[in-house]
Formats: sequence, structure tokens, C-alpha cells
Amino acid sequence: MPSESLAATAADVLERVRQRTPLVHCITNTVAQAFTANVLLAFGAVPSMTISADEIAEFTARADALVVNLGTFDAARQKAIAIAVETAMGTAKPWVLDPVMIDRSSLRAGLAKILIARKPRAVRLNRAELGALAGGELDGAAVAAFARDNDTTIGLTGDTDLVFDSKRVASLFNGHPLMAKVTAMGCAASALVAACLAVETDPWLATVSALIILGVAGDIAGETAAGPGSFAVDIIDALHALDREALLTRGQVVA
Amino acid sequence: MPSESLAATAADVLERVRQRTPLVHCITNTVAQAFTANVLLAFGAVPSMTISADEIAEFTARADALVVNLGTFDAARQKAIAIAVETAMGTAKPWVLDPVMIDRSSLRAGLAKILIARKPRAVRLNRAELGALAGGELDGAAVAAFARDNDTTIGLTGDTDLVFDSKRVASLFNGHPLMAKVTAMGCAASALVAACLAVETDPWLATVSALIILGVAGDIAGETAAGPGSFAVDIIDALHALDREALLTRGQVVA
Amino acid sequence: MPSESLAATAADVLERVRQRTPLVHCITNTVAQAFTANVLLAFGAVPSMTISADEIAEFTARADALVVNLGTFDAARQKAIAIAVETAMGTAKPWVLDPVMIDRSSLRAGLAKILIARKPRAVRLNRAELGALAGGELDGAAVAAFARDNDTTIGLTGDTDLVFDSKRVASLFNGHPLMAKVTAMGCAASALVAACLAVETDPWLATVSALIILGVAGDIAGETAAGPGSFAVDIIDALHALDREALLTRGQVVA
Repeated sequence: MPSESLAATAADVLERVRQRTPLVHCITNTVAQAFTANVLLAFGAVPSMTISADEIAEFTARADALVVNLGTFDAARQKAIAIAVETAMGTAKPWVLDPVMIDRSSLRAGLAKILIARKPRAVRLNRAELGALAGGELDGAAVAAFARDNDTTIGLTGDTDLVFDSKRVASLFNGHPLMAKVTAMGCAASALVAACLAVETDPWLATVSALIILGVAGDIAGETAAGPGSFAVDIIDALHALDREALLTRGQVVA
Repeated sequence: MPSESLAATAADVLERVRQRTPLVHCITNTVAQAFTANVLLAFGAVPSMTISADEIAEFTARADALVVNLGTFDAARQKAIAIAVETAMGTAKPWVLDPVMIDRSSLRAGLAKILIARKPRAVRLNRAELGALAGGELDGAAVAAFARDNDTTIGLTGDTDLVFDSKRVASLFNGHPLMAKVTAMGCAASALVAACLAVETDPWLATVSALIILGVAGDIAGETAAGPGSFAVDIIDALHALDREALLTRGQVVA
Repeated sequence: MPSESLAATAADVLERVRQRTPLVHCITNTVAQAFTANVLLAFGAVPSMTISADEIAEFTARADALVVNLGTFDAARQKAIAIAVETAMGTAKPWVLDPVMIDRSSLRAGLAKILIARKPRAVRLNRAELGALAGGELDGAAVAAFARDNDTTIGLTGDTDLVFDSKRVASLFNGHPLMAKVTAMGCAASALVAACLAVETDPWLATVSALIILGVAGDIAGETAAGPGSFAVDIIDALHALDREALLTRGQVVA
């Protein structure tokens, strides 16, 4: 699929998010909560963040998509995750798994393996986390096989972002090195994937769209930022101002 | 009461906050904590944020005002809220209720109804939350009746902010659309109400003052911000730089 | 020791941090987490923040340094602190104690006294907290005696920062008044001390270096910031851009 076509899809998805303002419920770590909420608001979605087991089912049932992030791995969140995922499955609601730092915690890796079996529509993670989830160093064919076996889409972020499902792979070249210097940038990316899944039924297109959108916003922020502090501010401004033209002219994706 | 008079009261309250640097204890959600703390510091108050049941009484007893925000509705916070409100009532300390998203959680709505009976000096909320608290769509007379029946002040924020007590209503026209695009802006507004209650015994004047102050800071931030990221930064700068002259020339309020 | 020499040491430490990118595990309060993580990333270190008792030992064992901050004093964190400190002691890993607001909570003060006996390599705190930890108003000789008796380094921050061990004291004159208007600035300072301890075995030199580095970044941020909002952004940019020359020309320290 040519680059122009996927950038145009991303522009369509962006417009749908702004029209429908999907509710995205985020079970995410306390480090990432405020930045993630602000990224979702700038994008046009509406975040909620409760992790209380007593109300998580109600929030998830009313949300349009769910993101499950394994940072801040406490007992309350583990209980909330179980309830929220069950609710999402029962209502056929899209959900995204973000297995934060499972390469550094065997307990988190164990939970991630249980959750992958519960059919997240997409998984957004980095290479070390993918290794911990799928086992060892993986080439493209192995990642595609992993996506197929688990009936999911893999959004693998890094210098180049790669998005796999069982039969398609996209390489995304937007983004900026300062994205790795802002805490919670990956968590926010996962939340954008969830927002896109709320308005786009093809999970691969939704994931590609979310990562193009964040990457182009990162390119724009990189032109004005004086360092990681201003970059974190400017990428939110860029996301809020993003339009079809910027995506079509700047989007760099090969599939 | 003419607009100039209320803007002048807000300027008086601002000066008193800066002179007395009141301690404001905040039981608030983890999404809002950092932004709320920075808003209070920029305003001239001193925040504390613990939610530990073991020390919340000590913090509340030493604070000059308390804000109880129902976001992050976990068991620890529910316990902390009960202790803190009891401490505040026992020491006649002003406290503010912020019933975050009670329209989306029946459990939170239930707790909010229990808390309103414990005489918060003011309640800061949006229209959906007011509907969940007071029942259905309410006209101005019904809100005033609700304020009277509960012996409190209602700070209802939205495009226009409205502040009711049993016999007075103020309409505030400052503020900027980007305020709705920054997470925790409402939570921060509630914390400012608490800070103003610490230095102004008339709860209606304190609530009007806090919302004029934040609204004018929002106006100023809206003149320089390039989007919601920079707006969140600029409103803190504007709040820190705010002075009597800005409040008198920019304050737009009718009562 | 002349000022130039300590500023040069700080420059050496900064370079080592950037080369080795130490992992710094932070048990810190939820207010401070995001800012602390972003400060560490801008500095060149890699933060982790879990407080789960189930995985804290694994994170601490893999980290290069640990910071224990007593803000957000809940049961989960108290358990995590016990495990993390034991792990750090068992692996001779440097750790820093930040006894946040122990002057306002007798329970926290009690825990701080227990922890000081477990040999933190450094303690970073303000004057009120030092009073609660060491008893009453202390002159320089008494602080040095306290450092000696507890075999630690004391980083006492304020208008002028003072760093004591049993036989040395440094006075640091960098920094900006807006540092006191940004929440979590002290918490971030403690995390920088931990990062420096990961690459510098002399705890006094590590603590002096961290505080010179943050102070010089604060000076630079103070030249561009319009208030505390932009100051919080600019100090992260300044920390990221900091180099040997800036430290040598701007560092103001007497020992």
C-alpha cells in the first residue's frame, strides 16, 4: 500500500476522532496519567483514568475503547485490569495492551502472557518488551507469526515504528529522538491507538494511523523544541493543530 | 453587585493569599496532583497531597483549607476522605467538594450525596456532575434552592461560570476554550476555591474570586498559547504574574 | 577545595552519567513521579518508578541507584521501601533518602529515623525536615556531627545549598527562586543525587555535583522563564543541554 494512502487513512481517522470524541478509559501508571490525558484531549478524545475495582466496569462499559498499561503494577490495578478486560470482551469493545517494562519484571511478563490470550485488538510495545512477550530476538516473519497466532496487531515502536498483523507490515519513519526523552511517550502512543480503534474497525489501519499521527506531531515539535521539556509541550500543541495537509505532506510510511 | 466590585474583591483575596500563603491540603486524583500543586504554588498557596489514612488527620489539622476531589476513587482515598472531612468539621476549617465524574459512576454519586450533607463550604463542579448530584436538569432557581437546602455555595463551571448561594448568583465570563483541553483544570479550580476560602470568610465571595482569578489567567494564557500544551504552561505563568490591575481591567462578572 | 575544582568534578560526573546512563529506581510520591522521570531522562539517566512490593526487589537489584522519598506515605510504599532498602543494602547499591515533609507528620519522621540507621549514602532535605530528623535548630558543626554519627552525606537545600559529610562542607550559590515554586523540585534533586552516586563513589562529591548541576540548570532556566510554568519546562531543557563549559563558567561553590 503506498505511503499516500496510509497517510490519507490516518487523516480520515483523525477527523473521525474529532467528530466522535471517543471515550478512552486508561488503566495506566501514575507516572503517565497526566501526560496521557493531555495527549488524548489534544487529539480530540476524552480520557478517564479510574482504577478502582468498584467502578471500573461501569467506566469501561461506557467507554469506546480501553488501554491496559502494566506500569504501576499494584494489586489494585491487577484487579481492575481483570474486570476491565472482561467487560471489554463482553461488550466487544476494542482494547490495547501496553506491556510496560515486562523485560524488567518476570511478574509483569507473566501477566502480559495471560492478557495476550484475551485478545487485545492491538499491542503497543518496544523491542525489549516484545522479546519478553514473544521470546528472544524476532525477525519480521516471526513477529507476523506471533501476531497471527494471537490474532492481534503489533505496534512495535522505536527509531522506526513497525506495525504487523498476520499478513501486513508497515514501516513508519516519522518521529524525533526527543520522543525517547519524555516519560510516558510510549504510554500516550498506546492511548492514541485505543482512540483510533474506537473509530476504525481494521486494527492494523487504526494502529498505523495512531503512530503516523504521533510521529508527525513529533516531527513538528522537533522543529520548535529547545529540549525534552519544551518538546513535551510542543508535541501536544502539534497534535492539537494537526490536520490532513500536515499528515499528507509529512507522513512517511511504507507498507 | 457591579462587576468592578467583585473584581476588586478578587484582587483583595489574591493579595491576602500571597500574604498569608495558606496551606491547602488536597485529596485529589493522581492525574491532577502535579498540575494542582503547581497552580496552588503559582497562586501563592502551599499544597500538600498525602492521602494516607495514618497521617491525613495531622495534615488536615495543620492546613488552612481542604479540597476533597472524588477522582481516583480507591479504598485508601475513601478512608482518607472520611477522616479529613471529620477533622475539617471538628476544627471549623473550610473544605471544598469536587465531585469529579459522578455522572459516570453511581458509587461516586452516592458518596458525593453523603459528603454534601457534611457541609462543604463550596462545591465546584460542571453541569453533568450537578445533574448527578442534585437530580436532573436544573434552572437557576433550582440551583439556588439546592445551595440553600445544603447550606453551601455552588461553583458551576463551563463556558460561563455561575456561582450560587441561597440568595446570590454571579455570572463569570472570563476564561478560554483551551481550559477544557487541559486535564485537571477543574480540579485546580477547586483547589483555588479552597485557597480563597482560607482567607475569605464569605464562601460566595471566595468562590467568585477564585473563578475570576483562574478565568483571567486563562484569558491571558490564551493570548500566547499555541495549543493546549503551551496553554497549561502559560496559565501557570499568568497566575503567578497576576495583579490587581489585570483583575480590574479584565474581570468580567455580573451579579 | 576551590570552586573551579568542584565545578569540574560536576562536569566529570555529568559526562559519566551520559556515558553510562544509570538506572535509577525511584520510590517517590505520585505528585513528583512525572517531573522526576523527565528530569532524570534529561540528565541522561533512566528512571523506573514501580512501588509494587511484588516486583520492587527485582527492579532495585537491576538498578544502579535507588531513591526513597517519603511523600505519598501509604502502606504499599512503606512495604516497598522496606524491601527496596534491604535489596540495596544487600547489593551495596547507593541509595538516597528524601524525608519529604517529615516536619508535618510524626509518622513519617519516625520512619525517617529508622531509615537513617540503614545507611543511605546521602540524605537530601530542607531545613525544616532536617530539624525534624536531627532535632531542633542546628548549626554547621551539629549538622557535620549528625552526618558523621550516621555515616552519611547531608544535602541541605534552600536559598543556599549546603552539603555536609563528617569533615567537609560545600556552599552552593546557584539556583533560582522559581525552583521553590515548582512542585517536586526537591524530589527531582534527590533523584539526581542518586544518579550521581551511581557513577561517583565519593558520596559528598556526588551530592555536590548533583546540586551544582541542578542549580546551574536553574540559573539558565531563570533567564528565559516567564514564571513557574515555563521555568519547569526550561529547567528540563537546560539540564538536557548542559555541558562542561556551562558548569565551569557558571558554577558557584565554596568548600
